[in-house]
Amino acid sequence: MDAQTVRVGILGASGYTGGELLRLLLRHPRVRVTLLTADRNAGKPIDSVFPHLGGYGLPLLTSIDKADWSEVDLVFCGLPHGTTQEIIAALPTHLKVVDLSADFRLADLETYATWYGHAHRAPALQREAIYGLTEFARPAIGNARLVANPGCYPTSAQLALIPLVEAAMIDADDIIIDAKSGVSGAGRAAKEGSLYTEVTEGINVYGIASHRHAPEIEQGLTAAAGRPIVVNFTPHLMPMSRGILSSIYVRMVGGATVDDVRQVLAKRFADEPFVRVLSNGAAPATRHVRGSNLCLMSVHADRLSGRAIVVSVIDNLVKGASGQAVQNMNVMCGFPEPLGLEQIALFP
Amino acid sequence: MDAQTVRVGILGASGYTGGELLRLLLRHPRVRVTLLTADRNAGKPIDSVFPHLGGYGLPLLTSIDKADWSEVDLVFCGLPHGTTQEIIAALPTHLKVVDLSADFRLADLETYATWYGHAHRAPALQREAIYGLTEFARPAIGNARLVANPGCYPTSAQLALIPLVEAAMIDADDIIIDAKSGVSGAGRAAKEGSLYTEVTEGINVYGIASHRHAPEIEQGLTAAAGRPIVVNFTPHLMPMSRGILSSIYVRMVGGATVDDVRQVLAKRFADEPFVRVLSNGAAPATRHVRGSNLCLMSVHADRLSGRAIVVSVIDNLVKGASGQAVQNMNVMCGFPEPLGLEQIALFP
Amino acid sequence: MDAQTVRVGILGASGYTGGELLRLLLRHPRVRVTLLTADRNAGKPIDSVFPHLGGYGLPLLTSIDKADWSEVDLVFCGLPHGTTQEIIAALPTHLKVVDLSADFRLADLETYATWYGHAHRAPALQREAIYGLTEFARPAIGNARLVANPGCYPTSAQLALIPLVEAAMIDADDIIIDAKSGVSGAGRAAKEGSLYTEVTEGINVYGIASHRHAPEIEQGLTAAAGRPIVVNFTPHLMPMSRGILSSIYVRMVGGATVDDVRQVLAKRFADEPFVRVLSNGAAPATRHVRGSNLCLMSVHADRLSGRAIVVSVIDNLVKGASGQAVQNMNVMCGFPEPLGLEQIALFP
Amino acid sequence: MDAQTVRVGILGASGYTGGELLRLLLRHPRVRVTLLTADRNAGKPIDSVFPHLGGYGLPLLTSIDKADWSEVDLVFCGLPHGTTQEIIAALPTHLKVVDLSADFRLADLETYATWYGHAHRAPALQREAIYGLTEFARPAIGNARLVANPGCYPTSAQLALIPLVEAAMIDADDIIIDAKSGVSGAGRAAKEGSLYTEVTEGINVYGIASHRHAPEIEQGLTAAAGRPIVVNFTPHLMPMSRGILSSIYVRMVGGATVDDVRQVLAKRFADEPFVRVLSNGAAPATRHVRGSNLCLMSVHADRLSGRAIVVSVIDNLVKGASGQAVQNMNVMCGFPEPLGLEQIALFP
Repeated sequence: MDAQTVRVGILGASGYTGGELLRLLLRHPRVRVTLLTADRNAGKPIDSVFPHLGGYGLPLLTSIDKADWSEVDLVFCGLPHGTTQEIIAALPTHLKVVDLSADFRLADLETYATWYGHAHRAPALQREAIYGLTEFARPAIGNARLVANPGCYPTSAQLALIPLVEAAMIDADDIIIDAKSGVSGAGRAAKEGSLYTEVTEGINVYGIASHRHAPEIEQGLTAAAGRPIVVNFTPHLMPMSRGILSSIYVRMVGGATVDDVRQVLAKRFADEPFVRVLSNGAAPATRHVRGSNLCLMSVHADRLSGRAIVVSVIDNLVKGASGQAVQNMNVMCGFPEPLGLEQIALFP
Repeated sequence: MDAQTVRVGILGASGYTGGELLRLLLRHPRVRVTLLTADRNAGKPIDSVFPHLGGYGLPLLTSIDKADWSEVDLVFCGLPHGTTQEIIAALPTHLKVVDLSADFRLADLETYATWYGHAHRAPALQREAIYGLTEFARPAIGNARLVANPGCYPTSAQLALIPLVEAAMIDADDIIIDAKSGVSGAGRAAKEGSLYTEVTEGINVYGIASHRHAPEIEQGLTAAAGRPIVVNFTPHLMPMSRGILSSIYVRMVGGATVDDVRQVLAKRFADEPFVRVLSNGAAPATRHVRGSNLCLMSVHADRLSGRAIVVSVIDNLVKGASGQAVQNMNVMCGFPEPLGLEQIALFP
Repeated sequence: MDAQTVRVGILGASGYTGGELLRLLLRHPRVRVTLLTADRNAGKPIDSVFPHLGGYGLPLLTSIDKADWSEVDLVFCGLPHGTTQEIIAALPTHLKVVDLSADFRLADLETYATWYGHAHRAPALQREAIYGLTEFARPAIGNARLVANPGCYPTSAQLALIPLVEAAMIDADDIIIDAKSGVSGAGRAAKEGSLYTEVTEGINVYGIASHRHAPEIEQGLTAAAGRPIVVNFTPHLMPMSRGILSSIYVRMVGGATVDDVRQVLAKRFADEPFVRVLSNGAAPATRHVRGSNLCLMSVHADRLSGRAIVVSVIDNLVKGASGQAVQNMNVMCGFPEPLGLEQIALFP
Repeated sequence: MDAQTVRVGILGASGYTGGELLRLLLRHPRVRVTLLTADRNAGKPIDSVFPHLGGYGLPLLTSIDKADWSEVDLVFCGLPHGTTQEIIAALPTHLKVVDLSADFRLADLETYATWYGHAHRAPALQREAIYGLTEFARPAIGNARLVANPGCYPTSAQLALIPLVEAAMIDADDIIIDAKSGVSGAGRAAKEGSLYTEVTEGINVYGIASHRHAPEIEQGLTAAAGRPIVVNFTPHLMPMSRGILSSIYVRMVGGATVDDVRQVLAKRFADEPFVRVLSNGAAPATRHVRGSNLCLMSVHADRLSGRAIVVSVIDNLVKGASGQAVQNMNVMCGFPEPLGLEQIALFP
């Protein structure tokens, strides 16, 4: 890899995480995009799938088996889970990889098999992969060849909870995560449940006690607690394209106060470029991070004594996917971490 | 009151609850609307404030002090809280009243003063008023002159929680109500926070531990438990005009199972025309009650052992306001309870 | 058919026009729904595809080849165009049919072949079918066995234009119809272009000079003018579930004024239950007809002298589809025309 | 003004154009923001009105009469029209000014008085002001002290129409502009008509033949034609925060074809960084310019022979307001024109 720029490929460029990667990478001063794959649209220009990305001189879409890997230093992989593991296993080993699928997020082979319904097909890689919650794994990410980019819900939840579990300020066995997500989290596949008419002007709960992001959150909290943790994770689908707001209900222990909880988070993230803990009284909204890589958090007293409420918001396509992927790329390549990620939220 | 029809007045006809009352009452076979007040728009036709209500022969808007009460048997009062209590106190006593404001919902004078910042100005009426959660107060409503129509959030939460607290199946000191509401709950007043541009494509939490619907919910649960109950009530504002979805997190006690919880609710509401408990596996969405007076509920196992999740949805303008008000009117007038309330949800 | 009630079947009950038919028919005092077909979902209850329609005692979904036609007097056909013509041709002849597809709307065989790319497969039926723009074809509809229910755009455009062309008040060769539609017009099929994320917060033009509703509008205006008419018809897709607003730009001829144009429309529709011409100065909005069978119109002066602007709004799923279909059923069955169609718009 | 950076003030920083200016200017490499005024919020930090703009080290909001003008080289003025003219007239003359209000857009004193209902209060400045449609006035803007930033609708319409009128390819007396706008065009003032509940899921026409952007468009076309031009301009309000799509219906003259029209536009804008003419068959959508300074255009054949349809889309807050204002600042300061304006559209 040349010291100045990195040549990047995107596998699965026609999905939303692919499009969002391009929005970010086209303005990244140290990146040149040299490969875009999209099997069903191979041979077409990018503006046939993303009109807003026309006019920037991007390469044609190609099929993955026609890719010229000699032109690529690092790939972002935005393919469906399940298929990703074999594709990544077959890539030339000179490539660094940031995988945005779920395939390498769970480190435990059995947990993976339980939640995904089959044995992992690239167990060696699974062991090698680094879970890329950037703020908590920089050194390992810096040395990694394969980074498993975290899920959107797990990013919003873990950023808030890991410091509190590590500090043993909350009862790790009584964590309730009520999360509200925009629709882009379901991807660009044409599904009845993602139709405008099915989503607008309403809200519904889904995947109760069975969403695959639960074990991912539990993996992070288990590591933080040093013992197995299970959580309530209840996702809701609501009419917005981007954004996740997690309302997290915790019971404080060991005499911790709401101010203590806020302090611990504020201290933990004081030097972080992308995490901000709001001052007492303020509460974040997803619209204030739309299009940006920020995570905003707040901490509130509960009417139930001894309890606190932690609110955490991100843009699921940026900090919850493509933005964090670029952040991880920056760490892997030794670039300044905020490079190419300084967009201010688009509001209104 | 003539045995066949009731002559109805609406105070505050230009607000959303007023408009929704008209949508329902214009198709109610036993109602004639004889009075509409709207002080700022007095003298104008209703279609100047609600174009969709033109053409139905409604009376002109008038100011409240010009109302001819001899033409009215029952009034719905959709005025701002705080001002309502004195207006109702001054009404002729032949009028039955369904008040949609918050003024008469809290029975305890001190609790009222604490949450609303001033002593109640009609304490005798406050004592007389019946809290109109129809499914739990029919006999009293049938004899009432003044019914305090419940708030939207409290309706969705109490319908689900009162039977469980009464059955002592859940720990009444560990109830978390994460509620998501549409924008019409904020009324039709022109406020920056309710602008399209401020609300669309986002979600935010508000009124944490300080929303005035918390003591209203607690009042109902306190009565059910026979001892003072405090709850977590955390409302969120999201982009939909109508609808509330409450995700309620409870801890089961006394050996109760998730199936037991579902059974108790199913049994309690088996004969109710407007409450439906979904079967195991199904979960409700606000869009499935849009425009209807239904409350849909479901019960789910939690990953945290011993815990259950209860989901309850209503249309905040119908079962959460004007629909329940008409339901109460039906009870007060001895009409069949579902009369005029049989609209099927509008979807998509 | 019994004098009191009609037994109705719906072919294609799992689509949006099917669901909307059910919303209306379940509250129609002279209808009993005895058959629902949905091939892919045969054997399931209706609430598996439309949760809001559960609890009303509807029959199970069945496949069309298992239908018991002896239980049915009249069918609504909400199947995809192209396949519909052969299905209807094979139905028992005792059935009256209201077809909501496009298959029988164009009376001219050649025009059909040109726009749909194949010869019609039931040409005899095509000749027999009555184009069901109710306000302009009552007697024929009353005697029809097969009614071709008009398209949504053509309903909104023709209601406004036919009287003006008939009165020879406008230049029929200079008509521009700029129409804006909600997403339900595209049906419930899972298509990328109908995803929430692709539609929300934007607008785009489509089908310019090539939309199949153009020849349908032209057919009506050609009949009104007595000579071949071609129009500009430019549809736009925008983020709303229901509604069409057509802004129609016309050049007045023969000395007609804007007031004359408004008068002609007002007179033409004075006795119509479902068409209202607004008075000078008012302009309609789609949200004021949401869920209702109304068409609202207004007429405005243009800054270009000699020109006028006619605005026409409907709910595409009601007056533009299922509502008009029920209206046609009422005419076919000799019921009062507004029966079951008196819903007031749902606003907000 | 120092050769490297310009010190910028924003008058009216708490409105949407103010917030959008900050989003752009905070990432502009040659700008330092030194003054923010907001009379009602004087003394507060910017994040009290725009939470997403906290954390970037911006100055406190101040009242305009406390501004220290010695710290400012150039001001953007985002104040309500009518009040702006006197405020700008009173500014120190060393300041360059880009005015985003309507106060200096109409060059003719009488036209201004007719449409705004009063004589202009700064007629000398009105004469001096340069109308800042950047692509058509660069040299004058480069020398201007006061630039009147064009309105949002006029930007989208004039970019498409001026070249065609100049080329005498279209009948300038038969231009119909059907425009659809997002809600942010109405500003951040709390008005009933801008409430979420009043706007979502609907569309309405407004200001027919009476919108103040009509004379602004006519002014540009009059100059292009060399004789007085009047146009049809019909704006619509629809549920999106940002974006304008103008569907423009024109009659070709002098033997021009649709391809000729497309060619003339393509040639005219070939070297422009912010205007793109799509190739035959493609049509733009507002969502493909959201957050970007681009104007996308397309040209289509009409079914009416001799007619063409031109579609033009912009983000009303960027190219239609704050983005074009920064573009004009770049020209006024001798900076490369695209500086700070290279954001790629945010989609989805």
